[in-house]
Amino acid sequence: MKHEGLKVHISKWLHIERESGIALLQKLVQADSTQGNEKNAQAIIIEELTKMGLDIDVWDPDGNQLKVHPHFASSRHDFHGSPNVVGVLKGKGGGRSVILNGHIDVVPAGDREQWDYEPFSGMVVDDKMYGRGVTDMKGGNVSLLLAIQAIQSLPITLKGDIIFESVIEEESGGAGTLASILRGYKADAAIVPEPTSMKIFPKQQGSMWFRLFVKGRSAHGGTRYEGVSAIDKSLLVLKHIEKLETKRNQLINDPLYSNVKIPIPINVGKIEGGNWPSSVADLVTIEGRIGVSPGETLEEAKKQLEEWLMKLADKDPWFQQFPVKLEWFGARWVPGSVDPDHPLVELLSKNYVQVVKKEPVIEASPWGTDGGLLTEIGKTPSVIFGPGLTEQAHFPNEYIQIDQVFQAAEIIACTLLDWCEFELQ
Amino acid sequence: MKHEGLKVHISKWLHIERESGIALLQKLVQADSTQGNEKNAQAIIIEELTKMGLDIDVWDPDGNQLKVHPHFASSRHDFHGSPNVVGVLKGKGGGRSVILNGHIDVVPAGDREQWDYEPFSGMVVDDKMYGRGVTDMKGGNVSLLLAIQAIQSLPITLKGDIIFESVIEEESGGAGTLASILRGYKADAAIVPEPTSMKIFPKQQGSMWFRLFVKGRSAHGGTRYEGVSAIDKSLLVLKHIEKLETKRNQLINDPLYSNVKIPIPINVGKIEGGNWPSSVADLVTIEGRIGVSPGETLEEAKKQLEEWLMKLADKDPWFQQFPVKLEWFGARWVPGSVDPDHPLVELLSKNYVQVVKKEPVIEASPWGTDGGLLTEIGKTPSVIFGPGLTEQAHFPNEYIQIDQVFQAAEIIACTLLDWCEFELQ
Repeated sequence: MKHEGLKVHISKWLHIERESGIALLQKLVQADSTQGNEKNAQAIIIEELTKMGLDIDVWDPDGNQLKVHPHFASSRHDFHGSPNVVGVLKGKGGGRSVILNGHIDVVPAGDREQWDYEPFSGMVVDDKMYGRGVTDMKGGNVSLLLAIQAIQSLPITLKGDIIFESVIEEESGGAGTLASILRGYKADAAIVPEPTSMKIFPKQQGSMWFRLFVKGRSAHGGTRYEGVSAIDKSLLVLKHIEKLETKRNQLINDPLYSNVKIPIPINVGKIEGGNWPSSVADLVTIEGRIGVSPGETLEEAKKQLEEWLMKLADKDPWFQQFPVKLEWFGARWVPGSVDPDHPLVELLSKNYVQVVKKEPVIEASPWGTDGGLLTEIGKTPSVIFGPGLTEQAHFPNEYIQIDQVFQAAEIIACTLLDWCEFELQ
Repeated sequence: MKHEGLKVHISKWLHIERESGIALLQKLVQADSTQGNEKNAQAIIIEELTKMGLDIDVWDPDGNQLKVHPHFASSRHDFHGSPNVVGVLKGKGGGRSVILNGHIDVVPAGDREQWDYEPFSGMVVDDKMYGRGVTDMKGGNVSLLLAIQAIQSLPITLKGDIIFESVIEEESGGAGTLASILRGYKADAAIVPEPTSMKIFPKQQGSMWFRLFVKGRSAHGGTRYEGVSAIDKSLLVLKHIEKLETKRNQLINDPLYSNVKIPIPINVGKIEGGNWPSSVADLVTIEGRIGVSPGETLEEAKKQLEEWLMKLADKDPWFQQFPVKLEWFGARWVPGSVDPDHPLVELLSKNYVQVVKKEPVIEASPWGTDGGLLTEIGKTPSVIFGPGLTEQAHFPNEYIQIDQVFQAAEIIACTLLDWCEFELQ
């Protein structure tokens, strides 16, 4: 069978296995795998890898080892009962190896009233599957498994190894992928099928969460002029942060961001202050995320925000006396950068054209993924490409277009053939 | 004994009874009388009124009767176990009657860590007593009781009646005073010894609480330009409200407000929005109070804010599609107005000068009290005058200057002599 014949076979195989692929995705969505509850979903992955005959490695990441690592970020230090799962399809040698990395954890479902269907139902309506995590990123994980299975259905032997990783903790800052890096998993390149809307991201921005404390001085609302409103002061702080966002984005000239309105946004996502309608608020807390460009480090971005906030004192003497307190907390994602001419990008693009019959969009990502850790810490250049709409992630009525799961599987399977190389049996 | 001799006697009596007055105030402060817990403090009042030999009326206000009244405002409809207490010292007739109204309820102590002493300790340090409610307004209540007791110590019979009211629910909008009005208590005038910093307030502003819901559209923070931030939209709303405050205050020309920086403030006391640092906030809730001038009605002020918020649509088309939702909730206080030349104001002023040896400050109040209901609904013209610093009310480390409690008691006792008139026994 010729190379192109193999790719036709992959396409046919995926068509035949469509129902079982959908069933697998539905089963994974039904297994609620929010932080701390990943075990059941991982058990499904283990069952699947076992059927596929891969070498399987299952372990609970070691919190004591992880927590001292400079790139550790999580809201917990104990990962007992939250296993990482790796399955390896060993090649015969002589080809390039690849890591296929997907996270199994999902963000909480949030307010159930905002969902049209039960968030962990995996309900299928009009070729869309609904559910928390279906897009971010169990759909992508199923694309990976289908891609490997499609390859296994061919009468070939791969040369390079395929290392499939189902990791925990991506949504909290990547402790699962960090643990697999520390366990020694490394490859010539990696694909991370986060929901990119089928765009190819050789570069990805990092991000960090920050918390600001803006002080005021309390007073009765009827004599509010005797106090200093922390809410009023917060308006200045928010405007000031907006200016930093403008400044930082003016400096971005990477052509991969040329079609992106705000390449590295600073998003203020939460505000909370005051405790009584007729009192002057004496404290406002602001929480947000700062995007970190693929070309800078987390430390550089941190320092810039810190110094920028100090400048508030020039605008209002109040901030000389009561500087805004800045805290870095919660999740963070390392930015990552792979040359847009990297051969894996080229192969993904070529196979995208063959499958989708259109040119792919190649951009830099608007958010961080575990690809940053893989590229920068794991020394495994990572490209982000997967099914599912970016804007569906984390929101009520999250869904995935089922067709895209199979399209992504086909593109990835064909790319693996090209990347790892093979011998006919 | 001549008139002036009686006043000297009052002063001496208060001096002699200083320790027992302090003990009574301390006992009242130690009886936590936050909403729903007023019973123990009222029991102390009842004991005191019993010793004084007044006619006592104790009743739990009837929620069913109150809740249909247009001026009812409270967070509850059931007042079982929260009694109002009235004590009447009947005059022999021929004089002017007076209501002495004080509320027994106190606002919650709040964060105990911000208190130097236990909030319900009534700790005395350097002639200051500390505790929740000591200023607002148990200090004033004790001034009233001491004033009546001082009068009872004189060899006279009053002509006019003294009606002492210890009411619940002032902090929640006046349901206790409304209940005593509906029970039929009425007089030729009233004194309400709220903490005015010993200023005399013939006029008082009303106020109402409002809640605004500002909508946005959610998105991932990394692509925040795909959403609409309710936090950003809130900034416009806050600026817009500030302009209304300016506009409303420019129209105030009452000389009683001439020394007040912002006569009728609009205070935004609370803001809360968004729920995830890296998501675009889709809802912000804002809570505040709007001051209502003594010359306008609550309905007029309501209508003005409602119409003003509609104008946001001219500034930003977003608000055409998603108008800010306005809700009136929680407490409200009717504004009240008594002629600054009213004889009770004159008598209080005259006696203030005799006791304090300075001219009193006569102003319009920066906040509402039960005096609004008494004046406007109860047809009992009310003047607000009491010990304690306005700025201490509702805050941690609330305290009162003990001397002021006795000064206020002396001024009020002398005023009662003049107002109610008397015969020597």
